This record gives sequence, C-alpha cells and structure tokens, in this order.
Amino acid sequence: MEQIKGYAYGQVAQSPVSLDDLSLLKKTVLFSEDDEKYLRLAGEVLKGQTNDVLDLWYGFVGGNEHLVHYFTKNGQPNMDYLAAVRARFGQWIMDLCNRPFDQDWLNYQYEIALRHHSAKKNKTDNVDTAPIIHYRYMTAFIYPITSTIKSFLVKNGHSQADVDAMHNAWFKAVTLTVILWTYPYINKGEF
Amino acid sequence: MEQIKGYAYGQVAQSPVSLDDLSLLKKTVLFSEDDEKYLRLAGEVLKGQTNDVLDLWYGFVGGNEHLVHYFTKNGQPNMDYLAAVRARFGQWIMDLCNRPFDQDWLNYQYEIALRHHSAKKNKTDNVDTAPIIHYRYMTAFIYPITSTIKSFLVKNGHSQADVDAMHNAWFKAVTLTVILWTYPYINKGEF
Repeated sequence: MEQIKGYAYGQVAQSPVSLDDLSLLKKTVLFSEDDEKYLRLAGEVLKGQTNDVLDLWYGFVGGNEHLVHYFTKNGQPNMDYLAAVRARFGQWIMDLCNRPFDQDWLNYQYEIALRHHSAKKNKTDNVDTAPIIHYRYMTAFIYPITSTIKSFLVKNGHSQADVDAMHNAWFKAVTLTVILWTYPYINKGEF
Repeated sequence: MEQIKGYAYGQVAQSPVSLDDLSLLKKTVLFSEDDEKYLRLAGEVLKGQTNDVLDLWYGFVGGNEHLVHYFTKNGQPNMDYLAAVRARFGQWIMDLCNRPFDQDWLNYQYEIALRHHSAKKNKTDNVDTAPIIHYRYMTAFIYPITSTIKSFLVKNGHSQADVDAMHNAWFKAVTLTVILWTYPYINKGEF
C-alpha cells in the first residue's frame, strides 16, 4: 500500500477524551454493535468509490469561497495542500468504517482535531494558509458529509433496509467524530 | 394561547452571530427555500404531536443517568425544572418549523445557548441543578433529535419523497441550531 504523507495513525499523543467519555457519547447517539457491523459493510461499499466521494466533496468546497478560504493564502488556493489533505481524507473514510473505536482511534481523532485548529493547522504539510478552520464549519459539515454519502451507499445493490442502516451508522459515526474534532475549540472545562 | 414561562422570543439580546454568518452557514448545510417550505409542512405534521415527541425525548433523557444529570441536584432530578424546560422545548419544535430564520430567530438561538451554558443555566427557572450542559452532549443530540423525528413525520400520510424532504430540512435546521447553541462554549475568535 502506498504511504500517505502525514498519516500517523497509532503514532500520536493521547486524546484528552477518555474511553469512558466515548462510551457515554456512543450511548447518546445510540451507537450499537449493529452500527459497527453496518459501518464495516459501508466500508466494503465505499472502498472502490472514495475518489468519487472526494470529487463530490472537493467540488462542494471548491464551489464555496467561504470554504476554499481555509486552503488559501492571499486568495490563492494551495494545490499541494489540497492534494495532501485529500489523500488523508480518503483514508479517513476507510478508517471511519473499519477501525475499532478504541484508544488509537480516539487519539487519532484528537490529532485530526489539532490539525484543523490553530494548534497544528498547516504544520503537517508545512504550508502557509488560513491559520484555523473556524468551529462553525466543522459542525456544519455533519450535514453534507452525511447526506451526500447515501448516493454512494446504494451502489452495491444492497436492500433499502441495509442502505438505511449503513447510512444511519455513518451519521452516528460522523457526529461522534465531529464532537472529537472540535475538542480544541472548547473553553476549558466545558467540553 | 397559554403563556409559556420563560419563553422570551423577540425580547432578548442581539446574537454575536450576524445574518451574513448565518447565510454562509445555510449555504454550508445546503439550506434552500425548498427546505423552508418543507419545514412549514413538518410544522403542520408535528403540531398535534409535540407531546408524543417530548415523551420520547424525555424518556431517552430520563433513561440515561449521564443526561438526566443536567436536571439534577445531589442525585435528585428537579421535576419543576424538567416541566418548565419541556414546555419551552415543545415551543422550540414549532419555532424551528415555522419561524423565519431572521434576526429575532438568531437572537433567540443565542438566548437558548446561554441557558445551556454556565452563563445563564438555571437562571430562567430559578433552580439549582448542574451548572452547565457540557458541550459534547449538545452536539451529540443532533443524532437522536434528527433520527427520532422521522416516525412522527410519516403520521399524516405524506408521500415518502415528502417525508424524506421534511426530514432532510429538519436535519439541516437542527444542525444550524446546534451550531448557534454552542457559541458560548467556543474559545474567543474560534467560532
């Protein structure tokens, strides 16, 4: 497998969120073993389609000035940065579907959080673009990332019930992920 | 119409989020005029069902110790507080479906935000329970509040396509709302 630049799963610092916290968050989004099973199935369906998914998501970001801004310096999008993030974003799709939500997963969500926040933005790729992705768009992305995936989940001919179950599991997993990705933005003690 | 205790729509301070910011957030969750139309339709469908919706949501909160905690003092849930919040929560369902997303709406989302945050929690009802609802559960609630509404949206016999459109508009509106409700939790300058 090709090495993805800046992808450091299993080699990052410990998350400030504990596995016990995660377990309560999972309860709050009604995440069950069935959802795990359907995420794995979604992983199989999405495996050959991540480039198409990313084409759609990048088209959306590229078509919205207020979003492409975060990849930009002096009005000029940094194409190397866009490409480097894209490779990791594709891997994220696979990791969300296939990785167990264990300590390594928790730690890596924190690493991704820091890379969106001013704490670590631009550092992984050694680029010079907007210093932070604002919080409000991190949470807003729950919608497009969830709604657009459905058209890809139907592609392998699974039943409507299975597609719905995969989509629901994806929605829960994305919500959990975004909560973890926003940790650095939250006032001390209020997370 | 019965007066709802502590409901102060149109009589609160200005939101720190501008209508221009809201407009970009709406673009980010792909919120369109069609969604407005389908929210109004959802409002008609949900109108006679808000008590059933609240029974379900309160059952969920009540069945989870880590959630009922926020209505609690020394392990004892405050029933008056639960009842007062419930009345406003029912009105929120109607407001989300029927109110235009204008300056008054924006301002009131900020008021609701403050009432979840330590800035103003417990004050409206003059109670003494947990001093803040932690950020992570505010965002986590996007999932249960969105997924559970579907079984109520089908009740008036609308077509599957119309139910899906109502559900999607609801998902977008809830996501927007939660972003606005979490403003007080975000580090200065990072929202």
